[in-house]
Amino acid sequence: MDLYSGHINKLIEELSALPGIGSKSAQRMAFYLINLPKERVQRFTNTILNAKENVRYCKKCFTLTDQDLCPICSNPKRDQNTIMVVESTRDLAAYEKTGKYEGVYHVLHGAISPMIGIGPNDIKLKELMQRLQEDIEEVIIATNSSLEGETTAMYISKLIKPTGIKVTRIASGVPVGGDLEYIDEVTLLRALEGRTEI
Amino acid sequence: MDLYSGHINKLIEELSALPGIGSKSAQRMAFYLINLPKERVQRFTNTILNAKENVRYCKKCFTLTDQDLCPICSNPKRDQNTIMVVESTRDLAAYEKTGKYEGVYHVLHGAISPMIGIGPNDIKLKELMQRLQEDIEEVIIATNSSLEGETTAMYISKLIKPTGIKVTRIASGVPVGGDLEYIDEVTLLRALEGRTEI
Repeated sequence: MDLYSGHINKLIEELSALPGIGSKSAQRMAFYLINLPKERVQRFTNTILNAKENVRYCKKCFTLTDQDLCPICSNPKRDQNTIMVVESTRDLAAYEKTGKYEGVYHVLHGAISPMIGIGPNDIKLKELMQRLQEDIEEVIIATNSSLEGETTAMYISKLIKPTGIKVTRIASGVPVGGDLEYIDEVTLLRALEGRTEI
Repeated sequence: MDLYSGHINKLIEELSALPGIGSKSAQRMAFYLINLPKERVQRFTNTILNAKENVRYCKKCFTLTDQDLCPICSNPKRDQNTIMVVESTRDLAAYEKTGKYEGVYHVLHGAISPMIGIGPNDIKLKELMQRLQEDIEEVIIATNSSLEGETTAMYISKLIKPTGIKVTRIASGVPVGGDLEYIDEVTLLRALEGRTEI
């Protein structure tokens, strides 16, 4: 769009690179930012730079945090012998919101995907295996229910089985409140396979 | 969300303040930014600061630009005697995309809205009246078709009428490709009122 100035175009371009942001939203955000008072814009950019500067991986579970150990790994009330393996910090956050999981996590930062060239060495899998040297009772695999997530789950389970540690996978099925007629066939079959006695 | 660190929380909060960004999108954007290489993050924040620093209002039409006069106002091929009045630079951009409008613009940066305390003096209306001292043939009012946009259009039209300059309003009606059954009643009535002979 030639009608904007170079600076505006560049800003729109940068904002469009953010995940889930299309060119319309980027335009809207750009004008919003330009119209903010200068101090607010500076606070905004400083917050980004500070986060980038200070946030690192927890040295145990590899979630993003600004301490050496994240609040979950350093919490003595959490069951440090049960590890839930997730693909991303956002997935960890989703389970934390339930408020019911008492164990700790391990964040892989990705999933195995031969299609786009992500192998077992590209995710925090070696680090997971190292943690299993300690006294671990159960590894719960909570990778996504996608092709990549399932591949990763199978791979990890095969890797851990020989150690004798219990490996489980979160259930697939009909979401609570879900209307059967709108649910895809694969999920319906999974729900059927995973049926339990009541 | 206590499970993230202070820096991440602050970043998510800042990003949530952007227009159209909810907490889920903000989370996603935050992790994306944190995972970018440091140079990319710096380029991102510099682009924002540069835009804020260099972008100003065109001294004629008040659109956002980085010169004194925007590319449209300084283009001798544009009809400088026809002014389209819009609420925002984004609305200007929308009309520019049609590629068919040959005149120039005037950006009000808002619309009159007594409900939220925005009066005629809070938008670039005085500046529009000043421009009318020059040799202007037509003022096309293209404010939004909302309550505020209509109020503003009426107000401007009353203000300009005594000068003898032609004032027009863009048409309201059924959008091209719109399916009548999905269009609200007010629009349908407007389309009826605005019918033209074929």
